[in-house]
Amino acid sequence: MGDGQTTFDVIVIGGGPGGYPAAIRASQLGQQVAVVEATHLGGICLNYGCIPTKALLHSAELFHAASNMADYGVELPGAPTANLAQMVRRSRQVAKRLTTGVKALLKKNKVTVFEGFGRLAGRGQVLVEQAGEGTLMLQAPNVILATGARPRTLPGLEPDGERVWTSKEAMLAEEIPGSLLVVGSGAIGMEFASLYNDLGSQVTIVEALAQILPVEDAEISDLVVKQFKKRGVAFHTSSTVQGLERTESGVRATVTPAEGEGEPVTIEVDRVILAIGIVGNTENLGLEGTAVEVDRGHILTNAWGQTQEAGVYAIGDVTAPPWLAHKATHEGILAAEHIAGLPNLHPINPQRIPGCTYCRPQIASIGLTEAKARETDRHVKIGRFPFRGNGKAIAMGEPEGMLKTIFDGDTGEILGAHLVGHGVTELIANVGAAMELESTETELMHTVFPHPTLSEALHESVLEAFGHAIHI
Amino acid sequence: MGDGQTTFDVIVIGGGPGGYPAAIRASQLGQQVAVVEATHLGGICLNYGCIPTKALLHSAELFHAASNMADYGVELPGAPTANLAQMVRRSRQVAKRLTTGVKALLKKNKVTVFEGFGRLAGRGQVLVEQAGEGTLMLQAPNVILATGARPRTLPGLEPDGERVWTSKEAMLAEEIPGSLLVVGSGAIGMEFASLYNDLGSQVTIVEALAQILPVEDAEISDLVVKQFKKRGVAFHTSSTVQGLERTESGVRATVTPAEGEGEPVTIEVDRVILAIGIVGNTENLGLEGTAVEVDRGHILTNAWGQTQEAGVYAIGDVTAPPWLAHKATHEGILAAEHIAGLPNLHPINPQRIPGCTYCRPQIASIGLTEAKARETDRHVKIGRFPFRGNGKAIAMGEPEGMLKTIFDGDTGEILGAHLVGHGVTELIANVGAAMELESTETELMHTVFPHPTLSEALHESVLEAFGHAIHI
Repeated sequence: MGDGQTTFDVIVIGGGPGGYPAAIRASQLGQQVAVVEATHLGGICLNYGCIPTKALLHSAELFHAASNMADYGVELPGAPTANLAQMVRRSRQVAKRLTTGVKALLKKNKVTVFEGFGRLAGRGQVLVEQAGEGTLMLQAPNVILATGARPRTLPGLEPDGERVWTSKEAMLAEEIPGSLLVVGSGAIGMEFASLYNDLGSQVTIVEALAQILPVEDAEISDLVVKQFKKRGVAFHTSSTVQGLERTESGVRATVTPAEGEGEPVTIEVDRVILAIGIVGNTENLGLEGTAVEVDRGHILTNAWGQTQEAGVYAIGDVTAPPWLAHKATHEGILAAEHIAGLPNLHPINPQRIPGCTYCRPQIASIGLTEAKARETDRHVKIGRFPFRGNGKAIAMGEPEGMLKTIFDGDTGEILGAHLVGHGVTELIANVGAAMELESTETELMHTVFPHPTLSEALHESVLEAFGHAIHI
Repeated sequence: MGDGQTTFDVIVIGGGPGGYPAAIRASQLGQQVAVVEATHLGGICLNYGCIPTKALLHSAELFHAASNMADYGVELPGAPTANLAQMVRRSRQVAKRLTTGVKALLKKNKVTVFEGFGRLAGRGQVLVEQAGEGTLMLQAPNVILATGARPRTLPGLEPDGERVWTSKEAMLAEEIPGSLLVVGSGAIGMEFASLYNDLGSQVTIVEALAQILPVEDAEISDLVVKQFKKRGVAFHTSSTVQGLERTESGVRATVTPAEGEGEPVTIEVDRVILAIGIVGNTENLGLEGTAVEVDRGHILTNAWGQTQEAGVYAIGDVTAPPWLAHKATHEGILAAEHIAGLPNLHPINPQRIPGCTYCRPQIASIGLTEAKARETDRHVKIGRFPFRGNGKAIAMGEPEGMLKTIFDGDTGEILGAHLVGHGVTELIANVGAAMELESTETELMHTVFPHPTLSEALHESVLEAFGHAIHI
């Protein structure tokens, strides 16, 4: 617990994917920095979010691959078995390795870590409640709130930790449920639906809105639904779950369609996963009496992360959406650089933050959807290229996929990209960089993409938008 | 064989990855186009090159994955078996699917295909020798030579098709050799070494130069050698194979080190793969009596593919290096656009052509190596980021890898990137696009890379070059 130092240049409350990079960057810039973390360094992302779920999804992908290897010339003496307990064990090891890494990085960067619950306690003061060890008062002219968020619950949709899970219980499960209801079809819901379906669960997804994956481009959503249906996943859109009832061994759920869209249906499942969004951790932060403004559970900031209270910044999931780890990281670094007075800072453009969903097929997107682009008065051009026209995708046996690019037809500006298929989460950064460089279609067309790669399909999608595609 | 038409705007001799896109692009631009192809549409690339080897390498990767699944929670009832015959069968199906696709694309784009051997026969004339059907004379004001290349042989290093293979026999093999000598450690040699090592062969690689993967950055080469050695592959660098001798069931090879570097060694193997480069197909093209210049087996052209002979273009492997399918494709499209008189054409910058090697680990690179950058009088900055600092790589169990980026420290210009590790062939296009957009480190730092992806490691490598990396 430090060497007794209690006065710093910067205190970061929360050691997740926004907080710890902010602390490291501040330290690189010569500041004396402390991080106050109540539960675990690395936050939800490393402990119960992005990273352990990716480890599980990778296991599920391997299990799926193992079930389909004969065609590729790999013969197994019998069917593979999914050992969920081992998948979870490995996922926990991965999480532990990374959180241990964060601890080492903070130490290497001379950041002091305080274990405890931190809150604002007057200008330049942070009170730390240390579990069983009383309290401690720290001082710093700048405080960064990086307390993250937690799964959202609704009346009648409360997790019980046993049969009604949040994402946390879903990633610690010991048995594969025979049947599973997933409430919510955003990234988290779709990833768990994909995971458990691959492991053998009968999965049903309920979504309140008319579109599965509500933030994605409608055409991409349709392609994902088609593939999930092929895998046996059932969907109820424009529907809500009105209460959950424990049965002898599972849960009974009433799925109610929007008015005029049919009758309620009762379904019985072994387990339920609630994936209905997140809520910022704004409580007990000492915001009362400060000028910090909170709107619908999230702290308001300017482009540099400054709240209305002098010397108080906020970053990541406790602020405005999109609630993504990489947004938190960039915001944290930006806040640290702003505090250090670095010149020429570059605000984050929300239109240039990519989003990835690691279900099978993967989804990756950035910028405007086709619908949003058409709402503007631009002359929109759309490029589409299917993976079945891509040599690498065919060689890998992954011909299902589509890359859609959206341009301003008059200026050539790239407005968005929406990708679905194998490996697309590694392709979207291309578009992010191109947008950051204010690329038009011309430079993307001139870029030599290597053959044979999936990334060539991105090139062809751009060519297609302007009538030059070769392989379609 | 067409509808009797013999006069065209453009004739393309060779229907490989340079020729068929050239023909399609010319047709898109309103030209009447013919392709003359002597053996198989799609060329070496689709039939006996990039595509079928990628299918085989994917099978080998699956076999490798199947041998290491228990840790991931996927249990198999026994060890997997590699069925090479089925791997090859699938690889041929993939090749056939793509070449059939090329045929369909040419038809859709109204390109007339002539099966036969084409050669120049006077200004604006192409003579086609049709196997067993006599000859045919075609006319066009513009001819594009896209005849590709073939494996190089040397005295004493001639393939016999049985025990001494070129890449073609190596991708059609029916049995996994117990032991294998690979002569040459460029991309082709390393891919086959990796493939057969994964399938169980004892592999020895001989390279004439001091560095394995001679065109790659020396540090990347060292990392690959280290991983290959862990897999049991043996290396002889600065050595040549002086003659091959058939034994009862295999081949005896004398490996001779460069002068003063030790004594010759004799090794016996079941099979040999010759991967000592390629030679352009410049023979019997009717170049005699034209102004077309040939230098060391390759046709000389200007930036638009024009040879010294008016109306004769050349593209792809029959021209200058690098001999890569994507270079051929871009050159073909550029030649077609030049013939059509399109304004504002953009020449290909050889420093912006990426190269990929699909061994395990993968290698991808573009631009200057560290050594070449240091030969200039620039103030060079180098960024390095290892995959063991990347969450996605850890989650996938692929922590071996390194991303190296090379900058001009004064201007921030990105000069090159050299990547090694899982999935890096899909990451290099990011750098190509950034170079095409004349990016500096600033825009790359501002780009929000999605979490958790391997592509974040590229971001960190850029940050590291300028002392801002977070996760190292």
